[in-house]
Amino acid sequence: MAPRRLVIAGATALTMCGPAAVIPDSEIVVEGGYIASVGPRSRRAGAWGGEAEVIDATGKVLIPGLVNAHVHAAMTLLRGYAEDLPLQEWLREKVWPAESRLTPEDVYWGTLLGIAEMIFSGTTSFADMYFHMDEVAEAVSQTGVRAALAPGLVPGPDSGEALLEAARAFAVRWHGAAEGRISVMLGPHAPYTCPPDFLARVARLSRELGVGVHIHLAETQEEIGECLARYGRRPVQTLREAGLLEGLLLAAHCVHLEQDEIRALRSLRGACVLCPVSNLKLGAGVAPLLEMLDAGVPLALGTDGAASAGALDMFRAMRLAALLPRGVSRDPTRPPAYRVLEMATAGGARALGQERILGRLEPGMKADLVVLDLRLPGTWPVHDIYAGIVYSAGPGNVETVIVDGRPVLLERRLLTIDLPRVMAECDERARRLAAAVG
Amino acid sequence: MAPRRLVIAGATALTMCGPAAVIPDSEIVVEGGYIASVGPRSRRAGAWGGEAEVIDATGKVLIPGLVNAHVHAAMTLLRGYAEDLPLQEWLREKVWPAESRLTPEDVYWGTLLGIAEMIFSGTTSFADMYFHMDEVAEAVSQTGVRAALAPGLVPGPDSGEALLEAARAFAVRWHGAAEGRISVMLGPHAPYTCPPDFLARVARLSRELGVGVHIHLAETQEEIGECLARYGRRPVQTLREAGLLEGLLLAAHCVHLEQDEIRALRSLRGACVLCPVSNLKLGAGVAPLLEMLDAGVPLALGTDGAASAGALDMFRAMRLAALLPRGVSRDPTRPPAYRVLEMATAGGARALGQERILGRLEPGMKADLVVLDLRLPGTWPVHDIYAGIVYSAGPGNVETVIVDGRPVLLERRLLTIDLPRVMAECDERARRLAAAVG
Repeated sequence: MAPRRLVIAGATALTMCGPAAVIPDSEIVVEGGYIASVGPRSRRAGAWGGEAEVIDATGKVLIPGLVNAHVHAAMTLLRGYAEDLPLQEWLREKVWPAESRLTPEDVYWGTLLGIAEMIFSGTTSFADMYFHMDEVAEAVSQTGVRAALAPGLVPGPDSGEALLEAARAFAVRWHGAAEGRISVMLGPHAPYTCPPDFLARVARLSRELGVGVHIHLAETQEEIGECLARYGRRPVQTLREAGLLEGLLLAAHCVHLEQDEIRALRSLRGACVLCPVSNLKLGAGVAPLLEMLDAGVPLALGTDGAASAGALDMFRAMRLAALLPRGVSRDPTRPPAYRVLEMATAGGARALGQERILGRLEPGMKADLVVLDLRLPGTWPVHDIYAGIVYSAGPGNVETVIVDGRPVLLERRLLTIDLPRVMAECDERARRLAAAVG
Repeated sequence: MAPRRLVIAGATALTMCGPAAVIPDSEIVVEGGYIASVGPRSRRAGAWGGEAEVIDATGKVLIPGLVNAHVHAAMTLLRGYAEDLPLQEWLREKVWPAESRLTPEDVYWGTLLGIAEMIFSGTTSFADMYFHMDEVAEAVSQTGVRAALAPGLVPGPDSGEALLEAARAFAVRWHGAAEGRISVMLGPHAPYTCPPDFLARVARLSRELGVGVHIHLAETQEEIGECLARYGRRPVQTLREAGLLEGLLLAAHCVHLEQDEIRALRSLRGACVLCPVSNLKLGAGVAPLLEMLDAGVPLALGTDGAASAGALDMFRAMRLAALLPRGVSRDPTRPPAYRVLEMATAGGARALGQERILGRLEPGMKADLVVLDLRLPGTWPVHDIYAGIVYSAGPGNVETVIVDGRPVLLERRLLTIDLPRVMAECDERARRLAAAVG
């Protein structure tokens, strides 16, 4: 249970309500899992007495929890597996055969490891698409983090209806569960792997259930060719015709978009989720971040799975989102670091359809908070606090992580996960998978 | 003084003598600062008795110390200063005015902070080009790390001779100092800022003194235009005509090269030092890493200064060196992680002209060693140890750092730097600079 009242005192608070909305010596009061007030410090830590539990964050930095808006957490089990292969060979001969052998218990333990890594790197919410999702939900429930969970849907010739029924049942079981920390989305894999009529049924089911849709969109140039060859239209047009652009849509990757597609994504409820590390590692390419930003497309960031990103570290995603457009456009002025941190907080909240309760430090928002200590050699001195977070900081700066008003990491101690047990389980399971597939 | 004999026992040792030259349960014996033997474990830790100091690294990974082959360590004072400006405005209106106000003491303290950051991230050697280099040498001497120090040379109309004489005096004072941990290089800034006759004199002086040359080469497209406009030839041709391609040359950046220039750099003594983070952040572009690798150009990696890279973290340099070619070429198969780690170890040693004594774990080499613990959530499990280091690891995995046979970081305790003092000094000095320049 969350403590009755929690106060985080003394931090420089980045409210993410605008670049200048920074409170130097702040006091954030949390009650019942929500932010009750945000302002300058009103009293010394000791003066709260028994009225509140106080976290003294003097000299530190407080930000909204990072949102990893596209991940397959259980793929930590395949971190570093089958490197340096062409994408299709990697998928067809290595990753998919390995995934076909994953038991529900594998997914449970792999997800726990992924959650541990995400907590240590300041992530409080994540959007996951995978299978054996009941086990993912259990892991989220037990560890105290927040997640939007999408059962991955890749229909075979006759399995569409059964998949949708299973997804409906999953939504009924888990949407709003774990004191509201779990939400459910539907996870049709991608426009090139799901026929248009299936996508239309997904759109109808999402409206009926009042949940969003999480899909891979335009990750590689090759898949756009496949989509055209199979269904006669490009991916964004496919989504539009299926009715998916009208509802809450989390569109992951968005690397290969034409101008009119960028325009079509401007009015998205939800967001386009860029995964720059994974897109480089798999050779997918570089998303048109500046063009999307200029067009007003809502943007968020994700890591993708550890098998294609190496790590579930949102600082890396932020850093690369800031660096890549500079290098590719040869313009070192954009995007500003504030915008990038916004993508990883408020933008991620929007991707999950939770922008009213997550992503900013404001009264009435859920208390998902991260205390950073920038007073370390790699982040010191601090001329610019947003640049410090985006270009210099990393997991080593994450000190305390609070989800729903409850600490899950306190002064770098992980409170909700038996890490040695999780690591031993994952090691054994990873070895078994590698031995089975070769 | 280094202990008489030091043994690092039980680690998986990556000798960097080939991808398969990995010793699972290793024993590295260090005597008098040199590696005396490298092999499988011969006895239990306790069995060494008083014969050796033993570091038990069971379950961990041992690599040669990382070499940051292009950095301006004192620029930690400008980390995050003046973000989001066009390059020339950033340089002319912010960085150069700030640098003109740097006192020798500023450079001393800023370098200490940079060294602390580098030690924490597994760097044992660095190649620095800056000014007030006596203070940089003092900082290197006191902290126990290894460095190749180049006084930066930008000749004015009449100052060339005086600069060279000062550089000669610096070389006499410091080349081979600090028990051999300091070497000196000459640091002509770049072919577009140094006239050809000055470069020729630098080449002659380097031969006379028996030291190498550290220069910026082809970092931006604009400077190539300047070089052509001023001197009628491209940068590589300028170096060739000055006689600089024949001696030990450390050429930093190398972003904009034509095919014949890449060919000309194949036979370099020394190396081309790629700085991918800085090249993106400043909008310089993306170096042709794969083309250079295919041509057989010797390659190393650097961070560049913290003002243009955010951090002095060689894991970031390695990761981006591995990721960028994949994304740009859309080929996820190259470069292999082993090659990238080699650039950051043996390649860096070559850039410093020290490939006979640094960069591999072999008897007779200097004992510059790093113990990594990959048994952390962000690097677990380990399917592929090279991929684990390049794509997943970071400073948080660095546990112990040994330079010249002597620990400078032991189980994450920094042994040679008074960090709170250094951070306080740097904070004060950074504030003063920012206030003076605005």
